[in-house]
Amino acid sequence: MFILELDIILKNIKNLKKILDSKETDIFINKILSSKRIFIFGIGRSGYVGRCFFMRLMHLNFNVYFVSEAPAFKEDDLLIVISNTGKCVTIKTIIEKAKKISNNIVVITSKNSKIKDISFSIVLDVDKNNYLPMGTTFEHTALIYLDLVIAKIMKVLNKSEEDIIKEHNNLL
Amino acid sequence: MFILELDIILKNIKNLKKILDSKETDIFINKILSSKRIFIFGIGRSGYVGRCFFMRLMHLNFNVYFVSEAPAFKEDDLLIVISNTGKCVTIKTIIEKAKKISNNIVVITSKNSKIKDISFSIVLDVDKNNYLPMGTTFEHTALIYLDLVIAKIMKVLNKSEEDIIKEHNNLL
Amino acid sequence: MFILELDIILKNIKNLKKILDSKETDIFINKILSSKRIFIFGIGRSGYVGRCFFMRLMHLNFNVYFVSEAPAFKEDDLLIVISNTGKCVTIKTIIEKAKKISNNIVVITSKNSKIKDISFSIVLDVDKNNYLPMGTTFEHTALIYLDLVIAKIMKVLNKSEEDIIKEHNNLL
Amino acid sequence: MFILELDIILKNIKNLKKILDSKETDIFINKILSSKRIFIFGIGRSGYVGRCFFMRLMHLNFNVYFVSEAPAFKEDDLLIVISNTGKCVTIKTIIEKAKKISNNIVVITSKNSKIKDISFSIVLDVDKNNYLPMGTTFEHTALIYLDLVIAKIMKVLNKSEEDIIKEHNNLL
Repeated sequence: MFILELDIILKNIKNLKKILDSKETDIFINKILSSKRIFIFGIGRSGYVGRCFFMRLMHLNFNVYFVSEAPAFKEDDLLIVISNTGKCVTIKTIIEKAKKISNNIVVITSKNSKIKDISFSIVLDVDKNNYLPMGTTFEHTALIYLDLVIAKIMKVLNKSEEDIIKEHNNLL
Repeated sequence: MFILELDIILKNIKNLKKILDSKETDIFINKILSSKRIFIFGIGRSGYVGRCFFMRLMHLNFNVYFVSEAPAFKEDDLLIVISNTGKCVTIKTIIEKAKKISNNIVVITSKNSKIKDISFSIVLDVDKNNYLPMGTTFEHTALIYLDLVIAKIMKVLNKSEEDIIKEHNNLL
Repeated sequence: MFILELDIILKNIKNLKKILDSKETDIFINKILSSKRIFIFGIGRSGYVGRCFFMRLMHLNFNVYFVSEAPAFKEDDLLIVISNTGKCVTIKTIIEKAKKISNNIVVITSKNSKIKDISFSIVLDVDKNNYLPMGTTFEHTALIYLDLVIAKIMKVLNKSEEDIIKEHNNLL
Repeated sequence: MFILELDIILKNIKNLKKILDSKETDIFINKILSSKRIFIFGIGRSGYVGRCFFMRLMHLNFNVYFVSEAPAFKEDDLLIVISNTGKCVTIKTIIEKAKKISNNIVVITSKNSKIKDISFSIVLDVDKNNYLPMGTTFEHTALIYLDLVIAKIMKVLNKSEEDIIKEHNNLL
């Protein structure tokens, strides 16, 4: 019943190997490691993917904000925008405003995106079908890509799961 | 560099076949289709997974709420809780309070969960490692599982991607 | 120590009498009572004021959404935007997009606003000083104005506090 | 039409003078100024009041978190909880968990509260009526109290509105 959709999803995730081993991912990780503060933005489901990434970066002691609740973006900061098509005016506006402050911007997007040429981009190669509508497959591929970026950063910083647990919310 | 982690993730997602074809998933989908209103809850990253599911159910015209911004839960409603370990007091408290109102509760959880026996549960069989810390693999497996539940509901209701696009946010 | 700031705040709130008794407030309340669904939007602290209003409208059984988590805005719906200055591009973009769909838009704003002439507006007359920075006084005046609109709607619909309590979140 | 409700609201806000000039407010402000990091929590509308306070503290360069998106609470941190009645299990649970880590907890609550004796409390003396249901008057009194605490902190730190504007979100 679900075999076709599951196969599309698995193929998209297998495809991550190429982008994970690319120079772009190295540059992205270096930007994260070298920026003073990290600002993340996305709309709707892409925003929730961004908030998941935000949480792990916070657990690794990065100085990280989600744009909706962030202070002023400054020239030493990094902006990460997650957007499948880049069609939303809000996305374009934020990138344009950020560019006047800093060129330190990374867009996580898909091959058909309207914004992949206006900033440094990580382009995810994702397929979809009628029952995986709109950005569905982009969103889980992006979540897994960003979790693997976290895995790499943990290795670089010599961090273990224990370190994450120590920094994890202990009040809720 | 990422092969080990990617393999764990792919195996977890392949494993979804079994639970997707199970009686539990049929019951879960029937509960969604037959409940008056749907309430979703999760904490942290599981909460964001829940908010992604919320958004697609909304696009399919279900009457759906995320508990943090919801009205009173009543006896004809369905509560869906997403929690990897079920350890958080808040999770247990919400399930206990809901049970006094209705037995229409579904928990999306993992095999090591502390709450899988206190309600009807969808138990995801997920592996992890040190660099996929805490609930990381549970969270993306849950997101994909719930997106495949959406795929099934779209088929049952004879909905296409066009129907989703028509109901999608057109202001942002 | 706080007397000057407290006096400014009290004066702003006393000033609400005029706008509460105005034709504009009557029109606003009629729009709420007669629209199929209500969409609310604001950025930052104005957004939180909007979410407070959202919650009370929900308790009164209105079909209400905050735009960030809303489905498609349609011609029978009402859009309420809360914005002190109307300077944000996002605010202007949302109002422009909404106008192509429906003229049923209400802007809660202040006398110096850039958007008060592009839609039906409730203009709050608020003073401020250096220690009540940016939209501070606008935000609490707007919150109280909207709570008094709720009071009026409760009277019109013959609702009591008991009715609100019955619909209030019972899981958290 | 609104005179009775407006009078109740104005009286509550005038009443703030006493608590603003109290030793409790001095202690509260000293805790904010001397803590390494500040964690804020509240549920529903009280949570939105907390998020408004969070935003101004962020504009003043404090290291501040809302508990729902926070890392681990540690012994040098300050927890501020906003809750009218303190009845929610979640509120009690969070205070109990926090107390095992640090005594640096401040509760903003009302005179009828169930939690005002379990931690250092700022007790707001607020009246209400049937058309200002549940915590309505507590919520705007708390918002204004916290904005006046911000005013005091600005004076102590010699900050002006210009300083706030410089740190205000410049992307949205």
